[in-house]
Amino acid sequence: MKITVLGTGGGGRAHAAKLLGLGHDVYVGTRDPEATLARTEPDMMGNPPYGRWLADHPGIQLRTFGEAAAAADSLVVGGIDGHNAVAALSSVADQLAGKTLVDYAVPYVYNPQVEHPWPTPWGIMPKLDPCDVDSLGERIQRALPRTKVVKSFVTQEQETVVNPAIVGGGDHTMFVAGDHDDAKRQVTELLKDYGWTDVLDLGPLVCARGMEMYAHMHSAIGFGLGQQFGGRFGIKVVR
Amino acid sequence: MKITVLGTGGGGRAHAAKLLGLGHDVYVGTRDPEATLARTEPDMMGNPPYGRWLADHPGIQLRTFGEAAAAADSLVVGGIDGHNAVAALSSVADQLAGKTLVDYAVPYVYNPQVEHPWPTPWGIMPKLDPCDVDSLGERIQRALPRTKVVKSFVTQEQETVVNPAIVGGGDHTMFVAGDHDDAKRQVTELLKDYGWTDVLDLGPLVCARGMEMYAHMHSAIGFGLGQQFGGRFGIKVVR
Repeated sequence: MKITVLGTGGGGRAHAAKLLGLGHDVYVGTRDPEATLARTEPDMMGNPPYGRWLADHPGIQLRTFGEAAAAADSLVVGGIDGHNAVAALSSVADQLAGKTLVDYAVPYVYNPQVEHPWPTPWGIMPKLDPCDVDSLGERIQRALPRTKVVKSFVTQEQETVVNPAIVGGGDHTMFVAGDHDDAKRQVTELLKDYGWTDVLDLGPLVCARGMEMYAHMHSAIGFGLGQQFGGRFGIKVVR
Repeated sequence: MKITVLGTGGGGRAHAAKLLGLGHDVYVGTRDPEATLARTEPDMMGNPPYGRWLADHPGIQLRTFGEAAAAADSLVVGGIDGHNAVAALSSVADQLAGKTLVDYAVPYVYNPQVEHPWPTPWGIMPKLDPCDVDSLGERIQRALPRTKVVKSFVTQEQETVVNPAIVGGGDHTMFVAGDHDDAKRQVTELLKDYGWTDVLDLGPLVCARGMEMYAHMHSAIGFGLGQQFGGRFGIKVVR
């Protein structure tokens, strides 16, 4: 299948590499491919320059957001940071029409005020916007009414999303939420290809609120485990 | 030990009954004991009148908030609803001074706007106040600086808090957060008496934000499992 990943950060790289390994034709979208390839410094999360990473993953096609979105058969993984996601995705709404978009962004806003021994690039317990009475997933769905938005992946670090077995043999739970059942089924199939055995459908996209707000709990659990960055753990719903 | 539970809702009842069963002297605080005992209707959550429940649990001592707080040796379980917790607890700050207070409240505000097939008494995905950049746990700690506040229990329904083995044989995770290590150790011991085998210390009380905001995820998981009320499930941190 032709599958597109929008965004060149750590999460986007994890998905692109995994999809390539699964035998898909992978297109990656970025605002300006030439500028992306010209970078020589690590990004804010410490990821190496994209050009270097791309050289290690031959076959991945780097394109503009619009070209990459248009290239997808039916499935697009949205890896644009939460702050820019609505604007960037809206600019390619026509190319995303009729397709399934997996949104895993957390709408972090920098919050330097909280003291904690372990800072993150966004401060500690960075503020979320939107939060509680709305979610980024719902905002994206409202901005792209012709696209089927599924919130998923967001409760895990992306390395463990694409390789769940590296934590506890893979016996933990992944979640999907959205207003389109066919799109949720499609994402659930993708997750099974990634190695997930327990995918729980939470229901309508309003549940994206809980999934995004879980970000602080995810950070706190990582702190509790002594994992400053990343968080190599999973959450199993025991029932 | 003399242990106090403040509040007469479902959570407070679960803790009081369990503590009685563990052999403690249990004091329960309510605003007006006579009024509490005079009620003949179920409360908003469908719990039977307190007097009837109390008759089935001989030995539990019903007192005013102040009398009950004063009776505790060193441990108080705060079961007052989130909306009223800061005011009610502040009114007995002297009696709580020097003691450990376990706060498990969620600061729900009624939010009727969201459509969902399964309503709760607070609407669906009820708004939280405070949220994100503050928490009820931190507010209580600021209001009671002489008391050691520990946030815990809040990620589970209270029946499964006091009887973790009823879900998955008890192989799931309970969390504590707070700024006083001795108080967290005391609460961890209580949790072990309740049957918990995996208690994770998340760190300082700022982590109460994540624990309280997890409420929406908890609701969503319950929806996903088809459990409209309550939620008989646990969360295991797999690492």
